[in-house]
Amino acid sequence: MLQTKLIPRTASAHEPPMLIKSLLAQSLKYEPQREIVYRDLFRMNYLEFNRRVRRLANTLTALGVKPGDTVAVFDWDSHRYLECFFGITGIGAILHTINVRLSPGQILYTMNHAEDKLVLIHEDFLPLLNAVKADLTTVEKYVLITDKVYADSTVGNTVPDGFEGEYETLLEKASDEYDFPDFDENTWATTFYTTGTTGNPKGVHFSHRQLFMHTMGLLTYVSGYECVSFKSSTDVYMPITPMFHVHAWGFPFLATMLAAKQIYPGRYEPEMLLRLLVKEGVTLSHCVPTILQMLVNSPAAQQFKPQLSRWKVIIGGSALTQGLAKAALELGIQVCAGYGMSETAPIMSVTYLNDEERPLPIGEQVNLRIRAGRIAPFVDLKLVDDHGNTVPHDGHSVGELVARGPWMTQGYYKEPEQSENLWRDGWLHTGDVASISPDNWIQIADRTKDVIKSGGEWVSSLAIEDLLSRVEGVAESAVIGLPDDRWGERPHALIVLKPDYTGKVTPAQIRASLQQQVEQGDINKWYVPDRVIFVPEIPKTSVGKIDKKKIRSEMREIILNA
Amino acid sequence: MLQTKLIPRTASAHEPPMLIKSLLAQSLKYEPQREIVYRDLFRMNYLEFNRRVRRLANTLTALGVKPGDTVAVFDWDSHRYLECFFGITGIGAILHTINVRLSPGQILYTMNHAEDKLVLIHEDFLPLLNAVKADLTTVEKYVLITDKVYADSTVGNTVPDGFEGEYETLLEKASDEYDFPDFDENTWATTFYTTGTTGNPKGVHFSHRQLFMHTMGLLTYVSGYECVSFKSSTDVYMPITPMFHVHAWGFPFLATMLAAKQIYPGRYEPEMLLRLLVKEGVTLSHCVPTILQMLVNSPAAQQFKPQLSRWKVIIGGSALTQGLAKAALELGIQVCAGYGMSETAPIMSVTYLNDEERPLPIGEQVNLRIRAGRIAPFVDLKLVDDHGNTVPHDGHSVGELVARGPWMTQGYYKEPEQSENLWRDGWLHTGDVASISPDNWIQIADRTKDVIKSGGEWVSSLAIEDLLSRVEGVAESAVIGLPDDRWGERPHALIVLKPDYTGKVTPAQIRASLQQQVEQGDINKWYVPDRVIFVPEIPKTSVGKIDKKKIRSEMREIILNA
Repeated sequence: MLQTKLIPRTASAHEPPMLIKSLLAQSLKYEPQREIVYRDLFRMNYLEFNRRVRRLANTLTALGVKPGDTVAVFDWDSHRYLECFFGITGIGAILHTINVRLSPGQILYTMNHAEDKLVLIHEDFLPLLNAVKADLTTVEKYVLITDKVYADSTVGNTVPDGFEGEYETLLEKASDEYDFPDFDENTWATTFYTTGTTGNPKGVHFSHRQLFMHTMGLLTYVSGYECVSFKSSTDVYMPITPMFHVHAWGFPFLATMLAAKQIYPGRYEPEMLLRLLVKEGVTLSHCVPTILQMLVNSPAAQQFKPQLSRWKVIIGGSALTQGLAKAALELGIQVCAGYGMSETAPIMSVTYLNDEERPLPIGEQVNLRIRAGRIAPFVDLKLVDDHGNTVPHDGHSVGELVARGPWMTQGYYKEPEQSENLWRDGWLHTGDVASISPDNWIQIADRTKDVIKSGGEWVSSLAIEDLLSRVEGVAESAVIGLPDDRWGERPHALIVLKPDYTGKVTPAQIRASLQQQVEQGDINKWYVPDRVIFVPEIPKTSVGKIDKKKIRSEMREIILNA
Repeated sequence: MLQTKLIPRTASAHEPPMLIKSLLAQSLKYEPQREIVYRDLFRMNYLEFNRRVRRLANTLTALGVKPGDTVAVFDWDSHRYLECFFGITGIGAILHTINVRLSPGQILYTMNHAEDKLVLIHEDFLPLLNAVKADLTTVEKYVLITDKVYADSTVGNTVPDGFEGEYETLLEKASDEYDFPDFDENTWATTFYTTGTTGNPKGVHFSHRQLFMHTMGLLTYVSGYECVSFKSSTDVYMPITPMFHVHAWGFPFLATMLAAKQIYPGRYEPEMLLRLLVKEGVTLSHCVPTILQMLVNSPAAQQFKPQLSRWKVIIGGSALTQGLAKAALELGIQVCAGYGMSETAPIMSVTYLNDEERPLPIGEQVNLRIRAGRIAPFVDLKLVDDHGNTVPHDGHSVGELVARGPWMTQGYYKEPEQSENLWRDGWLHTGDVASISPDNWIQIADRTKDVIKSGGEWVSSLAIEDLLSRVEGVAESAVIGLPDDRWGERPHALIVLKPDYTGKVTPAQIRASLQQQVEQGDINKWYVPDRVIFVPEIPKTSVGKIDKKKIRSEMREIILNA
């Protein structure tokens, strides 16, 4: 690194580290009366929220949690989880957000690997815990979370054997005075596990500085620029991505810093989501395409159109298809895409329509909005080929997307080889094949391992899925490559039909529809899947992405024999 | 500091330092076509701006400027100055923004003290330079700046003896390829000098990290919250505070990061300012009250009302009086106040009307808008008494305001004693006496040295100036305390009358007007100045603040004999 002259500092001078507590401090400065709401069960203002975070800090300390200790949380999206985002990290401890969709065996592995000391757990997940409890090697104490306490506060006095108490009841007993200390901004704040294609789940980790900077990046995006304009005085935020999934994309940190009204929906139930959306006036959410699809298809969607037309939704996790984007835009929902991964905290790119694109008619905007977005503020992305050479950003050349930025995990916990492989050549390797246009639009072609090599051509499984999403009757599809004697690999498609179309459309008709596009010269002939198979449901991963690994391993025979 | 567990980092992992170059990089991401304009002489888009910054970096390198070297700039507010903000700091050198309003002797002192190596100077300031040039001990090279080159490019080939060339001409010869290097984020980026009440000018210094964080603080204020809502797609920024004065309050860094349209007005001339305001559609500026007063009083103001009513102005440097705030609001100008100083980079507090205050009628808002604002994002302020004890934030108790935050100068260059005095007890001492309300509004009572101690009561000179601003006929006033045998000190007022009132109002009438407020019980009787003296002009410091030190020393006899 270049040698320069640093600023002089007198002995008594002070410069604060970048800590999560300084985001929390903002929430009291100007708008302490705004609200944080949990379902139809609980609401409070920011004054009370801050008091509760301090009560949590005292509770954790009383339970023996020390700086550097790891605290595991099992909960639905709640105000309590938000309190943990600030309270656990505020005392210098590490928040382990448990992915409750993992198998009990995987959860056991991650808890022992992360060396969790204390567990805060919603009663809905007790069966999961009980399945593995005997094999936990580091956990010392348990705290119960239950929604019943909001109806009957005496419930908090009865907890399972071996538990220290119930969350609300413990908080109530604790003092609301607590001075969050200063410490190194590179302090480990959060950890969670990502399940790859092979081997054990891998632990990513983020520092206070990284989460502070991610909040600044999001702020620059949603408030500095304006594709998804977020005004703290009039916008209302509700996550529909689990808080255990990359801190609900970091939005809770931003919403808290801006003291915006926040709604936490608990367990995702379509009816409750829609009710909160309308009753609380939600204007900003983020979710995977499946959830948006479900809400858009809901019979209630037309009825709630006035509120939906004020709703901005950022889609991530899987690609936004043209069909879904159009359906959402037709309901007035301002739909955008973001792209990221657990390793990148997660934002790497976001939809941004510039001065020239913003006035485009909705129809033309769809094609931009379904892209993976533009390179996010403060993030640096480039493409490399198999030899590590840079691939030009010309909008059509493809290469593996590699990233740098202020909020990337600096490795996988206790996995030195995989850490170095992730960061080979000093760039974080996303494992995604993409193109980048000269004006910074990212188009994900595929996961490096999902891309289909047919007759020497790279065929993007995502591109075929997008084509299929526009065929009448198709609700959802998954395309994978399977070995082929002549072409090396060939694409095959699993399709879920819309309810009305079952029994009325044949696989041949679906293929014919794509064939027609080949004849019109719109697509190459090798894009037409060899086989189209109707299935009732497409296998998904624990975070709701299409599980191609599972499809390839479990459905291979079914597909090839279809 | 508390011992915690830091995030692990694999050897190849990368996390970027917070450098000014990452603000610049943002300007190319989404809106490279937006414009930067200099008077009616020059306009370019951000693509060209970035090319020019890289040309400047190459020019500086060719002239022998190395990391850690200091480069002095003498210029009016211009696109060139903006290029220096990024180009000089980008190569790891230090930008010394020369306060051209200092005396030649003071300028000489600061240039030798800062050890300037290279000087970029606008021809208007050559007489200033020539007065001191023989005594400069460290300067090696000079570059000329002239506006004439925009009309006749051959002008750039004729420069004074001993000069390396002319700015535009040198840039044109340089390559526009340059990779800004990474270096420590605590690298010294800028320096400038503040003139205190006694002794030599003192050099403050800011790092890349501090200026990055100041930009994030401003962003949080203007884009995250919305009192002065700044939208990069529709807002147009024009500074009317010199760029040598605390980097024009840091706004050029923010405007560049957001790729907002920016207008640089060169030398401040009322006609040019108004013309640019209207022609370029300026919507955000900041200035001292004197400049706003001048524009509001201008005969053209009524004519330009449509544009002025879209104009947001942040006032700093001196207190915004009720009279001026009202006059501006009546023209539709959204006027707010900010408070800060050279040592604090500068933002410490800013007007923010919360959900309850925003709907108030303009008349009631005036009383809030003339305050020094609320504690700024990420800044921590408190009050201390003479013994260093904390004074309550109850809205009426007063104490010295002390500050902490991510962008405070960490001392005065080569002034160890004054640095420690500034930072005694680990808090930056502002030298201002203030109160803080429970909801974070700051009211500056006075400079610690300007406060008047009359009969055991602290009387705020600023409060009396505000009272006087509301008396008919008063254009401007300055109140100082002078020794009094009976009361210890008593206030005395210098007053500039509005042109129409000269000869029509007497000092006795002014005092009677305040006396009436005493009888109504609105103010205490000791607030009425002992003497009121009409003057054609009030002495100002080099940055346009009322120079009470000068008034006390030079006008004392005049006042006492009046």
